[in-house]
Amino acid sequence: MKGSLLYEGKAKKVYSLVGEEYELILEYKDEATAFNGKKHQTFRGKGRLNNLISAHVFSYLKLAGIPTHFIQTLSDTEQLVKQSQIIPLEVVVRNVAAGSMTRRLGLEEGTVLPQPVVEFYYKSDELDDPFLNDEHARLLAKVDQSDLEKIKASALKINRHLQVMFSEIELRLIDFKLEFGRLYDGSIVLSDEISPDTCRLWDQDTNRKMDKDVFRNDIEDLVEIYEIILKRLEAIVHV
Amino acid sequence: MKGSLLYEGKAKKVYSLVGEEYELILEYKDEATAFNGKKHQTFRGKGRLNNLISAHVFSYLKLAGIPTHFIQTLSDTEQLVKQSQIIPLEVVVRNVAAGSMTRRLGLEEGTVLPQPVVEFYYKSDELDDPFLNDEHARLLAKVDQSDLEKIKASALKINRHLQVMFSEIELRLIDFKLEFGRLYDGSIVLSDEISPDTCRLWDQDTNRKMDKDVFRNDIEDLVEIYEIILKRLEAIVHV
Ligand SMILES: Nc1ncnc2c1ncn2[C@@H]1O[C@H](COP(=O)(O)OP(=O)(O)O)[C@@H](O)[C@H]1O
Ligand SMILES: Nc1ncnc2c1ncn2[C@@H]1O[C@H](COP(=O)(O)OP(=O)(O)O)[C@@H](O)[C@H]1O
Ligand SMILES: [Mg+2]
Ligand SMILES: [Mg+2]
Repeated sequence: MKGSLLYEGKAKKVYSLVGEEYELILEYKDEATAFNGKKHQTFRGKGRLNNLISAHVFSYLKLAGIPTHFIQTLSDTEQLVKQSQIIPLEVVVRNVAAGSMTRRLGLEEGTVLPQPVVEFYYKSDELDDPFLNDEHARLLAKVDQSDLEKIKASALKINRHLQVMFSEIELRLIDFKLEFGRLYDGSIVLSDEISPDTCRLWDQDTNRKMDKDVFRNDIEDLVEIYEIILKRLEAIVHV
Repeated sequence: MKGSLLYEGKAKKVYSLVGEEYELILEYKDEATAFNGKKHQTFRGKGRLNNLISAHVFSYLKLAGIPTHFIQTLSDTEQLVKQSQIIPLEVVVRNVAAGSMTRRLGLEEGTVLPQPVVEFYYKSDELDDPFLNDEHARLLAKVDQSDLEKIKASALKINRHLQVMFSEIELRLIDFKLEFGRLYDGSIVLSDEISPDTCRLWDQDTNRKMDKDVFRNDIEDLVEIYEIILKRLEAIVHV
């Protein structure tokens, strides 16, 4: 039975589960936010789309042997996950230069990186998620270098699996953001969500943007795009 | 004999040396700049002070066994150095939180870091010296991980020597910026300058700022402060 609301984030509500100390319910909201919450809008149906897309992606990764928090889908907008203590790092993997990287480092959007790059950002709305190096990450997120190395290796492995998965549905995985958490036994698992809110996905043939950038830059209707992605995933991943 | 002007930077002019392919003359200017050149002012005597202070610091480090570009002082404002191909990284070492770090990471100025932190910034005026992680540094500065590890280790060693040296003249070394370059034989040496322009130095007892922050924040007369530092260094380092 759904327990009390523990936390409300920008995209999801987190509920406890009565009688299950180590499980949580994530309820996906219809809210889209960008630029650290400065732009926001409600999209009817978005919560369902992200919930189901993320469930498909996590099921795919689970099958590939990646330890995750995902247990099962409960309803159109809810999923059951293992409770984890979120490590306050946004772990970004980039295959192609886009977004802030192009502006910060003077790279042209679309530049293929010679190898995937892993970046850490400090998950802090007040500080606007500052970019970190390993030393800052150890300092602020209270992880040691061996945890960081495990997280980087896991992020790169997830990247390889997601590149294959998205190529099967004719999408190029440009970059994406992950969060990791610690289970009660101390092991580190992939947590949070993987959806077009947290990935940049470009159409393989036309480079059409198929992710939250359509909302960030007012390009197209977000719900229509996310619907296409869910349809294509349903055809290849069975949850 | 002084050859042609090869490059004019914000703080120094770089000249070739007739008949000496692998040596350069650095001429220190009377110019102070801050905020990536947006604030600038001429201070009569500053060129001499930075030239002589940097010569003292490099002599100290040379005695301590650190490979550097420094050969000798030529005049009040000029020094002879080995030509190096500058690696386009600003290598920052921090012992205490100050400056951009306090704003970016939400740390209070003066917070002693649990251990010294090394940061890389991309030396690019157009991009405003963006902060990098190791992967960006490899990508942009065309160095490999073993070069980066050598640079980090060297920066931390230099930090230990400079902390001792500055404590002898009653100053706390808060943070500083280094540049490294490659000699014609490929070896990496400490290049550029070390002066109150490139260090944060606080009086050991009063925390009075004794560095370029007095100009950045219009606190005190820069020349008077730099003069004090040179006087104190002359009493302990003989060049
Ligand atoms: N397995 C989990 N255990 C605990 N917290 C989680 C788990 N998965 C995701 N979370 C957290 O759920 C919160 C709500 O998500 P979201 O709305 O995206 O929040 P935010 O606005 O902080 O990004 C986030 O703090 C996220 O880190
Ligand atoms: N040994 C060296 N060999 C070649 N260039 C050097 C050496 N030492 C310093 N330089 C370079 O001299 C230039 C002039 O210094 P500066 O005025 O501080 O320039 P900037 O405005 O680029 O920081 C800089 O590009 C610096 O990297
Ligand atoms: Mg989130
Ligand atoms: Mg300089």
